[in-house]
Amino acid sequence: MGDRNVRLALTIGDPGGIGPEICSRFLASSRRPRDIDLVIIGSAPALFREGPRIEDELPLVNAGKSGEVSLPPERNCLVSTGGNEPPPRGRPTPEGGSASGRAVEVAVDLARRGEVEGIVTGPISKEALRLAGYDYDGHTEMLADLFDAPDCQMMMVDGAFRVVILTRHLPLGRVAETISAQLIETGVTVVNESLEGWFGLRKPCIAVAALNPHAGEGGHLGSEEEEVIGPAVARLRQRGLAVEGPISADSLFHSSRARLYDAIVALYHDQGMIPFKMAAFDRGVNVTVGLPVIRTSVCHGTAFDIAGTGTAETGSLEAAVELAALCVRRKTPLE
Amino acid sequence: MGDRNVRLALTIGDPGGIGPEICSRFLASSRRPRDIDLVIIGSAPALFREGPRIEDELPLVNAGKSGEVSLPPERNCLVSTGGNEPPPRGRPTPEGGSASGRAVEVAVDLARRGEVEGIVTGPISKEALRLAGYDYDGHTEMLADLFDAPDCQMMMVDGAFRVVILTRHLPLGRVAETISAQLIETGVTVVNESLEGWFGLRKPCIAVAALNPHAGEGGHLGSEEEEVIGPAVARLRQRGLAVEGPISADSLFHSSRARLYDAIVALYHDQGMIPFKMAAFDRGVNVTVGLPVIRTSVCHGTAFDIAGTGTAETGSLEAAVELAALCVRRKTPLE
Repeated sequence: MGDRNVRLALTIGDPGGIGPEICSRFLASSRRPRDIDLVIIGSAPALFREGPRIEDELPLVNAGKSGEVSLPPERNCLVSTGGNEPPPRGRPTPEGGSASGRAVEVAVDLARRGEVEGIVTGPISKEALRLAGYDYDGHTEMLADLFDAPDCQMMMVDGAFRVVILTRHLPLGRVAETISAQLIETGVTVVNESLEGWFGLRKPCIAVAALNPHAGEGGHLGSEEEEVIGPAVARLRQRGLAVEGPISADSLFHSSRARLYDAIVALYHDQGMIPFKMAAFDRGVNVTVGLPVIRTSVCHGTAFDIAGTGTAETGSLEAAVELAALCVRRKTPLE
Repeated sequence: MGDRNVRLALTIGDPGGIGPEICSRFLASSRRPRDIDLVIIGSAPALFREGPRIEDELPLVNAGKSGEVSLPPERNCLVSTGGNEPPPRGRPTPEGGSASGRAVEVAVDLARRGEVEGIVTGPISKEALRLAGYDYDGHTEMLADLFDAPDCQMMMVDGAFRVVILTRHLPLGRVAETISAQLIETGVTVVNESLEGWFGLRKPCIAVAALNPHAGEGGHLGSEEEEVIGPAVARLRQRGLAVEGPISADSLFHSSRARLYDAIVALYHDQGMIPFKMAAFDRGVNVTVGLPVIRTSVCHGTAFDIAGTGTAETGSLEAAVELAALCVRRKTPLE
């Protein structure tokens, strides 16, 4: 481990947001790990606007509107998916959506062809993607579609505190009807495999949150714990997985128990994101598990309101790149 | 303020739980405020089991099964609502439910007749209450019924961090259909009045959480923000209340903004209880607002599993008693 370089795709994200400036500063940073090679993908003019020296330092290829991209022989390079002018900062535009959407497509294609071993993504704007004709609820849904991996899951990671969100972008009123034993069993299985494979954990321990207050209180406050979640957890345990639940969510997250689990599976967005952001907002990395390659992401958005002001922090991007490389090295067989 | 004693009812809670031992230790503690008089109500034998000296120190009256209780002339006294033997520790029993349910009834009656100025409650067991024929989802629902105050709300308090839960004991699948503009407007109005009256805040600032992920994201992830919550907040603002929302819940609770609001109104149990317990588990006080008197409660349960071991903490009870007295003094006109 650690003897060879890992090669990752890094998408810049929406060119009007803070993606270009955090990528530019990360590339120039002395903290950038030298054993990670990067294929940077996105709007080249937006990146040059933030870091003019990049134009002289990185070989550039144009991705075009579709089809495979041939990478230059250099270890690090830049693949442009935008036009010749940078889109305006500070708001979603069709040009921004087109450049950032195409960048994800190129990254997935490079990963499928083995040209990169993992993908790190900068922040995109769903509104810009829609303006450009992409109809996805988020990065995770787009990757699930492009990789044809419908069972992949979003995992928020801060060290050993890992929170999975089973139903991500869903109105709250549809959560209860969407939670099924199948969803839980498939989701926990994917999480378990990723903890073993990407995170190097033997027999990881996973907690499943309850849906209802007080875990349904024996059926008085909802039946899903007894009828759906409990049986799903029982079947997973029969298969040998170390799974516990359903556990009352308000008890689960505040307790020191939360740190005993290798991952906590939350059933809906706010149930997982409220405690994760409270505990780890500045440090979190968003990981998609269940894809054929590792994919990590910054856990913040495009932050259109501060784009170009030079105030965006690069910490989440640094953590996302390093975690992706770590996962690749862990999964690579020793030679 | 502070010149006269405040008189509060203190219910012991379920006699098989930790209520009797924390009451007993609180009564004997040197930290017990001397300017608060207490009418202790509950199973006297369970209290004597934990603190035998109480039997010699406090005048005792029996409440009987129903009807008004005549208090003795002493400032502090004990009203027994149980039999002659203490129920067993460690589990819900019909006797425990009967003693703790009757204690709440007596406390409410004393408050209505002006014999006490506020109510502090120890932890009850809903299962024991049901065994004794009381059918309530919790203390708050029981008090709402006995005081005929259906609009009262549960507020969790830790210093200036106050979280209100609009739908308390409801299966998650019924939350979306239960949230109405009327519920939000009535709830926020009650919260606003309590912040002004009991907490002494002029023009308090209140945040209302969103229901859906990302506050519905402009309708893409749910319509309640635009159709229900937003209009309710707008009407409250027209009436002059300082209300903001709907605010995406995962952003709201982690941010420093959470500390700028005098209260945060959460729409369902886990949305409010996950962040409150993470931030303030050991120190929280549960307050019912919208009743004619102040009512505070410990924020922990009966803890049947440790009852009688002497390990239960009295901090939450101390805080509940002191907060109730503080609220009474604030609301009392200066003479």
